[in-house]
Amino acid sequence: MTDTTLSPTDLPAFAGRHIGPDDEAVTEMLAAIGRSSLDDLTATAVPDAIRATGGMDITPAESEAAVVKELRGLAVRNSVLTSMIGLGYYGTVVPPVIQRNVLENPAWYTAYTPYQPEISQGRLEALLNFQTVVSDLTGLTTAGASLLDEATAAAEAMTLMRRSSKAASDAVLLVDEAVFPQTLAVMRTRATPLGIELVVADLSGVSTAEALTEAAGGRAVFGVLVQYPDLHGRLLDHRDLALAAHEAGALVTAAADLMALTLAVAPGEWGADIAVGTTQRFGVPMAFGGPHAGYMSVRAGLERTLPGRLVGVSVDATGAPAYRLALQTREQHIRREKATSNICTAQVLLAVMASMYAVYHGPRGLRAIALRIHAHAEALAAALSEGGVDVAEGARFDTLSVTVPGRADEVVAAALAQGTNLWRHDADTVIVSVDETTDLGDIAGVARAFGVDEPTRVDIAEPGWGEALDRTSDYLTHPVFSSHHSETSMLRYLRRLSDRDFALDRGMIPLGSCTMKLNATTEMLAITWPEFANLHPFAPLDQTEGIRALVDQLEQWLCEITGYDAVSLQPNAGSQGEFAGLLAIAAYHRSRGDSERNICLIPASAHGTNAASAVMAGMKVVVVKTDTITGNVDMDDLKAKVEEHRDDLAAIMVTYPSTHGVFEDTIKDLCAMVHDAGGQVYVDGANLNALVGLAQPGRFGADVSHLNLHKTFCIPHGGGGPGVGPVALREHLAPFLPNHPLDPEAGPETGVGPVSAAPYGSAGILPISWAYVRLMGAAGLQRATEVAVLNANYVAARLRDSYPVLYSGEDGLVAHECILDVRPLTKATGVTVDDIAKRLIDYGFHAPTMSFPVAGTLMVEPTESEDKTELDRFCDAMVAIRTEIDAAGSAGNADASVLRGAPHTALSLAGEWDVDYSREEAAFPKGVDPLAKYWPPVRRIDGAYGDRHLVCSCPPPEAFED
Amino acid sequence: MTDTTLSPTDLPAFAGRHIGPDDEAVTEMLAAIGRSSLDDLTATAVPDAIRATGGMDITPAESEAAVVKELRGLAVRNSVLTSMIGLGYYGTVVPPVIQRNVLENPAWYTAYTPYQPEISQGRLEALLNFQTVVSDLTGLTTAGASLLDEATAAAEAMTLMRRSSKAASDAVLLVDEAVFPQTLAVMRTRATPLGIELVVADLSGVSTAEALTEAAGGRAVFGVLVQYPDLHGRLLDHRDLALAAHEAGALVTAAADLMALTLAVAPGEWGADIAVGTTQRFGVPMAFGGPHAGYMSVRAGLERTLPGRLVGVSVDATGAPAYRLALQTREQHIRREKATSNICTAQVLLAVMASMYAVYHGPRGLRAIALRIHAHAEALAAALSEGGVDVAEGARFDTLSVTVPGRADEVVAAALAQGTNLWRHDADTVIVSVDETTDLGDIAGVARAFGVDEPTRVDIAEPGWGEALDRTSDYLTHPVFSSHHSETSMLRYLRRLSDRDFALDRGMIPLGSCTMKLNATTEMLAITWPEFANLHPFAPLDQTEGIRALVDQLEQWLCEITGYDAVSLQPNAGSQGEFAGLLAIAAYHRSRGDSERNICLIPASAHGTNAASAVMAGMKVVVVKTDTITGNVDMDDLKAKVEEHRDDLAAIMVTYPSTHGVFEDTIKDLCAMVHDAGGQVYVDGANLNALVGLAQPGRFGADVSHLNLHKTFCIPHGGGGPGVGPVALREHLAPFLPNHPLDPEAGPETGVGPVSAAPYGSAGILPISWAYVRLMGAAGLQRATEVAVLNANYVAARLRDSYPVLYSGEDGLVAHECILDVRPLTKATGVTVDDIAKRLIDYGFHAPTMSFPVAGTLMVEPTESEDKTELDRFCDAMVAIRTEIDAAGSAGNADASVLRGAPHTALSLAGEWDVDYSREEAAFPKGVDPLAKYWPPVRRIDGAYGDRHLVCSCPPPEAFED
Repeated sequence: MTDTTLSPTDLPAFAGRHIGPDDEAVTEMLAAIGRSSLDDLTATAVPDAIRATGGMDITPAESEAAVVKELRGLAVRNSVLTSMIGLGYYGTVVPPVIQRNVLENPAWYTAYTPYQPEISQGRLEALLNFQTVVSDLTGLTTAGASLLDEATAAAEAMTLMRRSSKAASDAVLLVDEAVFPQTLAVMRTRATPLGIELVVADLSGVSTAEALTEAAGGRAVFGVLVQYPDLHGRLLDHRDLALAAHEAGALVTAAADLMALTLAVAPGEWGADIAVGTTQRFGVPMAFGGPHAGYMSVRAGLERTLPGRLVGVSVDATGAPAYRLALQTREQHIRREKATSNICTAQVLLAVMASMYAVYHGPRGLRAIALRIHAHAEALAAALSEGGVDVAEGARFDTLSVTVPGRADEVVAAALAQGTNLWRHDADTVIVSVDETTDLGDIAGVARAFGVDEPTRVDIAEPGWGEALDRTSDYLTHPVFSSHHSETSMLRYLRRLSDRDFALDRGMIPLGSCTMKLNATTEMLAITWPEFANLHPFAPLDQTEGIRALVDQLEQWLCEITGYDAVSLQPNAGSQGEFAGLLAIAAYHRSRGDSERNICLIPASAHGTNAASAVMAGMKVVVVKTDTITGNVDMDDLKAKVEEHRDDLAAIMVTYPSTHGVFEDTIKDLCAMVHDAGGQVYVDGANLNALVGLAQPGRFGADVSHLNLHKTFCIPHGGGGPGVGPVALREHLAPFLPNHPLDPEAGPETGVGPVSAAPYGSAGILPISWAYVRLMGAAGLQRATEVAVLNANYVAARLRDSYPVLYSGEDGLVAHECILDVRPLTKATGVTVDDIAKRLIDYGFHAPTMSFPVAGTLMVEPTESEDKTELDRFCDAMVAIRTEIDAAGSAGNADASVLRGAPHTALSLAGEWDVDYSREEAAFPKGVDPLAKYWPPVRRIDGAYGDRHLVCSCPPPEAFED
Repeated sequence: MTDTTLSPTDLPAFAGRHIGPDDEAVTEMLAAIGRSSLDDLTATAVPDAIRATGGMDITPAESEAAVVKELRGLAVRNSVLTSMIGLGYYGTVVPPVIQRNVLENPAWYTAYTPYQPEISQGRLEALLNFQTVVSDLTGLTTAGASLLDEATAAAEAMTLMRRSSKAASDAVLLVDEAVFPQTLAVMRTRATPLGIELVVADLSGVSTAEALTEAAGGRAVFGVLVQYPDLHGRLLDHRDLALAAHEAGALVTAAADLMALTLAVAPGEWGADIAVGTTQRFGVPMAFGGPHAGYMSVRAGLERTLPGRLVGVSVDATGAPAYRLALQTREQHIRREKATSNICTAQVLLAVMASMYAVYHGPRGLRAIALRIHAHAEALAAALSEGGVDVAEGARFDTLSVTVPGRADEVVAAALAQGTNLWRHDADTVIVSVDETTDLGDIAGVARAFGVDEPTRVDIAEPGWGEALDRTSDYLTHPVFSSHHSETSMLRYLRRLSDRDFALDRGMIPLGSCTMKLNATTEMLAITWPEFANLHPFAPLDQTEGIRALVDQLEQWLCEITGYDAVSLQPNAGSQGEFAGLLAIAAYHRSRGDSERNICLIPASAHGTNAASAVMAGMKVVVVKTDTITGNVDMDDLKAKVEEHRDDLAAIMVTYPSTHGVFEDTIKDLCAMVHDAGGQVYVDGANLNALVGLAQPGRFGADVSHLNLHKTFCIPHGGGGPGVGPVALREHLAPFLPNHPLDPEAGPETGVGPVSAAPYGSAGILPISWAYVRLMGAAGLQRATEVAVLNANYVAARLRDSYPVLYSGEDGLVAHECILDVRPLTKATGVTVDDIAKRLIDYGFHAPTMSFPVAGTLMVEPTESEDKTELDRFCDAMVAIRTEIDAAGSAGNADASVLRGAPHTALSLAGEWDVDYSREEAAFPKGVDPLAKYWPPVRRIDGAYGDRHLVCSCPPPEAFED
């Protein structure tokens, strides 16, 4: 019920909570930057040419309580049945201590990616545990810190195998036919633009190089991929297949189930080079498909080719062990068009949950869970066999493939009537998967559905699959996996780790381009409700009406906001949205017979991901210069490049406002120029937080954008994921959106195939963005943008005298972020952006973005959620640091300065003190409230040391002594 | 669905999470204390005479997931309708950021009472905010840190007025007839045993001392109590009444609604001496009656007579401002039989929530909420009046008294049919209360129920009650109330405060007698479900079936566990349970014509509350000696006292196992001796954690006990409340349990009246204890007891060489706690228990209980939830401290020792260092993990300074500068 008569102001109540500065502060800040009103500010900052005129047609905002009620209404339109569908998504018991103290705890979910490792040691330790779990269970030496999902991990394995194999350039990838269908589909989507050919065959009998070649239709093979256990639940001995593949010069990837690996021989033990998969069933809710942490591990020798993030152990300035992201030189943001993957986001929050599940259960507990699952599967199989139903023979872990000629629909319907979903594989085959939540009642119900006598008992027993399959090797032998099995100990471990990290619940994280705004509690509430959390992504449509209605409405709102005509929420990271957008452009050109159009223009200042995505989409990157003074796209160079590529121009990718934090007033001309040459315009939505309510890319000339719901739309960064990167585009590109083989509603029939494993990607966290839009309404959203711009300009104004603001528009205004130029100071004093970033830790702040888009600078994005008090605290610290830089300059010795010594730990205060500055200056500089002091757990970390001595799983406890 | 065939061991899975030591650790620890098994240990420790033989008939344990499902089943049996009942319980919007980060955050809910102020500065600041809110809004100078509920606060005001008034000893308390019925009933329960007479009269027209005396039937009056606004919603000008009362030598108490006070003249402004009430509607769910924070504030001159806890500002060793509990000399645990109240527990967690609600909304926000409430009430009144319905005239805030001759039932039923509960005052009168959650739709529904046209709009306006009632004075002017209105800022404030405190989520809190065990997440889940959280305590019976079923089952289980025949869950603190138990004893004697039996024997070592409760129950305390060597009750002295009081012996109150942590083997004799003399045996259940599954007080001779659900049954201490103190007793006492005037099911008709405002006291948190019992089952509960005894004996064994264990049983065994004697060390070295307690902070521990039951000792209770690693960490620290004590002794200067300097802040490390020990020794002594270091925010606090300079509301920010 809305009491419109009661609204004291036009601004929704929630907007006043989301936006930091109140009316009085806004007035003061406007005065400080010499603007009379927010309207005046944005009218000046945003070019008239692109300024939106019409309002956004978004449902009027409601109170937090009313929106929660509305979400409940959507929730009850979902039916949570017992899922025995499997296919990579399983029921799991989320330990409540982990749910409440990780997934529902802002100390974990509001953290950023651990690029500042000194203030990220807690989640880095958790991720190292994750890597250890994956590495131990798969029997491969090195695991990464998580990938997006199993299907994209398989696609990454495909390209990794291609890179690492010496097979001929026309060699194919051989995929076993019993792979999960969504995994195959995503691999196809990713293979096509790269010109990689997939051959699907039954590999179950392949044991020689000859047979392998035969299966590949006589083609050379660079890689082999099998599901382990496979779609039909079979657990096969792949030793001979692996030998054959290696003999043929191919690498082998196992898409493996970690729970099965607690009982079955590890892929690394039977010869796989790579393992991929998901860790969902380690205590992460199915959530209608995501987010979950995908994984990849590789054998020795491949570790430097791993895509995605990798946590490793190094040392800090005192020689103490310290964690940080290792081998970052591999990452796309460094390698740009030379990148081998566009993976950016990991799934840190979910990887942390999965790792903690392993820590909490330990090896014995995991094994007990797996035995229980297996025992239930066997009990069901026995009941079916005894009842005369044809169950596939052979070793199995949790899944039965049941042949019921012509009766599959009937059996599935009978199970449904009892509240259980099974998987109809085809008209004659039903697949049934048992999981941690399955009990005797569940399998009895399934037996009834098949028309046989119910099993009456379940006997736990060793699987006894034989020597070839029974696991005999140890795993999770590190003490961390046997120390926290009581809830008390687990709780304290979680607290201890989170206390080491700096997240939004402690203070501002002014990362340019990352939009670290409030993740409001109300927005977070619904994601852990069972009605959203416990849906299988392939559950029947009529059981998922609520989430589908939410998806539809969010898509409509995003269209209203961006001015585009269609949106797909499937991409589960910004990079995937980019990829999907570029695929749509390529498909569009192809549909018009313009197959030769494959040039993608990208300004020099672009996000590294842009170029990487273009390459993955099969395009050729041509770099356009940017003006060294204004930071804008060099229109002359652009003109020349467009002319040059008039016949093969596919697209331009630009960020708006620019990565320099400026509203370029040439954007309309740029769009026209590219369109005129037959190209499409891709606007990277990373900076949408400066546009919402003020301008619409879909109206000012762009054809497609990806958005980052984890930036503008309040999905928390989770310490480095999850992300959601919807692709939004104009009508003519809509037929080329992603779709999904298992969900007819998830995209157009003419679509480019799936880019994520699940039909709606990370559907489980979409209620967050839905709630944000619902709570803010059009007026609130626009106000947020205006205040984001105000905050950035206020910071720029306050810091301009201490650090030159590198780029700004004609009126000296920036958009929603500003670049502080440190280069002259570095030249004069030797103090670097790194020194400032680490010194900010002593002052109690996360650093701004360093050296992007311009080396030697800091990019500050305060967002609308920071209030004036916090902005002033930050500016005061930056001004104080400027004084310290000057002092270091005067002393002529940056190495001995408090800046170079930063960050300072509490432990360092207690030890010998042989530096020129005082302990107080080090740890309690002016403005630091001793009662609110954040202590980094380590001194400055030596990243290079760790890369030279790569250690990516838990070090022995002795490493931490002294 | 239970899979009994699957149970790998007899112990429920949850017990393995709740109990710290696993099987291997138990074996090691048994070896360390020379026992072969847990059975052997308990057989030796627990006297045969009391050892229980039969098992407990408790539903077999289930998994956490299954228990949550069962709780959902109970939840859906409650119907959450819109409540417009009022009577002190109102719908409120709990800000999600506060719910999740206070009520659902272990950093807040697992903290102990702030008796160690150096490690409690966060919640002390929150409580100081609470006191400031109450003091500001009531217009009285000093407010306490919360009381149990409004009704008991009114009863405390009654005795405070009695103590402070110079009126004759037979003077009466004059209570206005329009007071809430439950408040009146609790005052009656409390007045009777003290011989205080209540006169209820219509005081609305009383304006002279003569009229006052006349209203009191010609009797002298020591106090006057009015409800403001009153039961009928009337807001009356009480200035003349207050003048009249003062002229007559009486004090005046207003039971006032804080929300109304944002608009109405404060009690302190119209002449009240005392204000009491509840802060429930400041963002604390109704929760079927509790827990909520009651409040009391008093005018200058009465502050030293305030019952309950009072937070004040003092200074630490460096002179920095620091908070601590002030004027503790007033408290019952010091004053024992001279106590004026038995209040022990406060409602800290709920007071923190209410204070944060005020911080989040600020004065303007609160006023806006109040105006909105008022506007809805007026719109409804107008609609009713226009429809010809008779609404009481005059100033009102939120409540209408509507006269509908003969039609009250019909109107209430009509409203019910639309999903709204109204209050049927009598056959002709319906009371309707508007609250923060009420919207236009709600009042439209009420209008329909009365058969009049719906109001169509609500206009916010100043109340315009006139000069006598309109509030003009400021409130909440301290900056804290205007600094945290954005969610980001609020979140960080909550984090910052909680980071200052040491709670169970950081480490062990080995407080003897306090049983700081795990508060498991699963146990906490249901309390914030709307089906439990949003029930009005006076909602119709058929809407509250689920919570009533839960209450019934929990009562049965508690009977099974204790061996008693009946339980009442109404007492919302242990002290209230004691009071209820003693009332039952007194009523029992009275029912047998033994009215002269009023002597209560209490051993010298008893909890201070025992004596205070006995006095409140109208008994006379006679102290029984305890043996100085064994700590046991001196049986000879007991015999003598029993003989002496053969004719007037009412009861004995003993704690079992004793407050010395010993199973006295004379307990059966003691019971027999008292019974033989016609007395009843009260066993204080504080130490029930040593008995569950091993012995039952109700079977070994006791007649009545109170239990502490916040000790043995896992309700978190909440930083100093809530508590739940059920009274359990044998059949013959059952007719004298508490009951409730508004709930026929809440106790026997023959009961002694209510001891709490709500029928089931703090019903909202009973799901916690219910879940604990359900998760543990009989086997798990018994195992918990055994391991609690094991842990205590292990600690005693490990520390015996460093600190003599003061008392133990015949085999050298203790029960579930042990007393470490520090007196010889103090004598030899000057180092005190205080020094050890503060030094433990440097080592990362909360201190054990200090100087109870024996001055100069430390009492350690590890509980079953601490694992061996944590016990060893604690013992190592204590042993290391012993070395430090010896060093201080050798140096001959305790003042200069690291012990006296403790605790050490991080700030202190950064400053000048002019002491004999090193910084490292101070802050990082052996065994302290720098990565897990807890930093106290202040140095040792000077409590006496603060008592001399009493400041009990927020100090100006300048106080914290340097």
